[in-house]
Amino acid sequence: MAFTTKATIASFGGKLLKLTHQSTTTGTPMALNLFLPPQALTTPPTRVPLLIYLSGLTCTPDNCAEKGFFQPGAARVGLAVLYPDTSPRGLDLPGERASWDFGEAAGFYLDATQPPWSGGYRMESYLTEELPAALFGDGSGSGDGGAYGAVLDRARVAITGHSMGGHGALTLYLRHPGLYRSVSAFAPIANPSECAWGRKAFAGYLGPDREGWRAHDATELVRGWTGGDLKALVDVGTGDQFYKQGQLLPENLERAAREAGVQGLTVRYQEGYDHSYYFISSFSDDHINHAAKHLGLLSE
Amino acid sequence: MAFTTKATIASFGGKLLKLTHQSTTTGTPMALNLFLPPQALTTPPTRVPLLIYLSGLTCTPDNCAEKGFFQPGAARVGLAVLYPDTSPRGLDLPGERASWDFGEAAGFYLDATQPPWSGGYRMESYLTEELPAALFGDGSGSGDGGAYGAVLDRARVAITGHSMGGHGALTLYLRHPGLYRSVSAFAPIANPSECAWGRKAFAGYLGPDREGWRAHDATELVRGWTGGDLKALVDVGTGDQFYKQGQLLPENLERAAREAGVQGLTVRYQEGYDHSYYFISSFSDDHINHAAKHLGLLSE
Repeated sequence: MAFTTKATIASFGGKLLKLTHQSTTTGTPMALNLFLPPQALTTPPTRVPLLIYLSGLTCTPDNCAEKGFFQPGAARVGLAVLYPDTSPRGLDLPGERASWDFGEAAGFYLDATQPPWSGGYRMESYLTEELPAALFGDGSGSGDGGAYGAVLDRARVAITGHSMGGHGALTLYLRHPGLYRSVSAFAPIANPSECAWGRKAFAGYLGPDREGWRAHDATELVRGWTGGDLKALVDVGTGDQFYKQGQLLPENLERAAREAGVQGLTVRYQEGYDHSYYFISSFSDDHINHAAKHLGLLSE
Repeated sequence: MAFTTKATIASFGGKLLKLTHQSTTTGTPMALNLFLPPQALTTPPTRVPLLIYLSGLTCTPDNCAEKGFFQPGAARVGLAVLYPDTSPRGLDLPGERASWDFGEAAGFYLDATQPPWSGGYRMESYLTEELPAALFGDGSGSGDGGAYGAVLDRARVAITGHSMGGHGALTLYLRHPGLYRSVSAFAPIANPSECAWGRKAFAGYLGPDREGWRAHDATELVRGWTGGDLKALVDVGTGDQFYKQGQLLPENLERAAREAGVQGLTVRYQEGYDHSYYFISSFSDDHINHAAKHLGLLSE
């Protein structure tokens, strides 16, 4: 469970930690980046809330840490940001690196049920169980049994993500009520059962039975949501090629929420923005503020 | 002189233009990125001032546009930002790609005098003559004869840069009084005649006579500066491996300015920061504000 610190990088008065640890869930080493804002680096240490950012296809923990522009806002409000990886790496499964939208760097934030993926492609369990326990502690004691339990507040966690990571943020939020205080997403794959990326991933990881896909599809999950106000912010660029290709389908999520009478989903269509980090960075401050309000850092 | 627009990317309410043009100075196509803030995109167009950012060794125009975090501040104050390339590319000179600190992506922002480099490695002329003329106009008329003369104010230009680009910003500023309203630098190679990077580059581009190097060394140039207040801001991270190796030597620049009685050089040593874009991005807002004050966008 222990983390190895590969690098400690000064950033916006805080520190970006490049970490790795051996995961029993995936059976591989897992890399992650953790930004600690200056508010967490006091003596004695102060616990700060945490925003988890899930990256999109092809990404590592580094892409958003370098290009997402989350750190200035996080340093301003006093929020830690966690950048996990997008899949296990190094399992050397057949076909694992054959395509950019399945296998390595394309884990889709679920636990695969189909061999050979079911052995290690278990990103949902990794992110909701093993990684929090390693960071915060095992939950049995004072909350500071984990490597960063003294500086991270396990009771105040929010989640966000981009594209495949937007799908991950929305589905983990909807599947684990109470685990996160709020959710947001940039250009999420909002109805994966109905798009090419999602069908390929779900067929491969979950098998051909579409019934089993519903439990990992934000648009299906929101229909059964009974957790009250959704506290969800979604941004989509109207110039996004993948939006135009029908890979994202945010309108389906909006319609499902509306039909189910679920309140608290804000979807913004940002004129002319694309699918890149230029889009993410332009609105990351809004997503920091969204999380910060629900984490008690800013007044709502 | 005409630019080809390879991409137009929405960013912070403005637009990042990925441009290329055929340079007669270098004899090659030259790529550049130009960020136009929202203030430049009004109807009719409004002229905004320009900050030129010169990148370090190995970089293209993309690195800082993606990782430098200049756009949010530039959009806030109404400042365009130009990201030129770090050398000609494609000349296929012998040894041009043999090392990362000489030749391609390592042009050192000077006009080489030694063959074969003297044919195309003329980044100083490119940056101070051809590129401004192409952007702003030829100077003979109303100032809007260039491709972006209607939105860029040729009379209000500032310059900044990182590492080799910090050397470039300081030396172009000191060699061309009046061309730029202010200068700043992140971890500049401040006394290239006295460090390994600089000696290799100067020997290769300018020849073995060290006397000729003085005209391209900021520490030497500042001794002869007669332009009054220097309007220079320099940041250096104390955790920067290249600072610790003696490649940057900002103390030599400080001492030379002090001995010459030159005022207006602020050098800040930032505790624990490294040489990366994590360092640049943490202080880019300060450099935007420094330029903005001298460009009349913010009160001093």
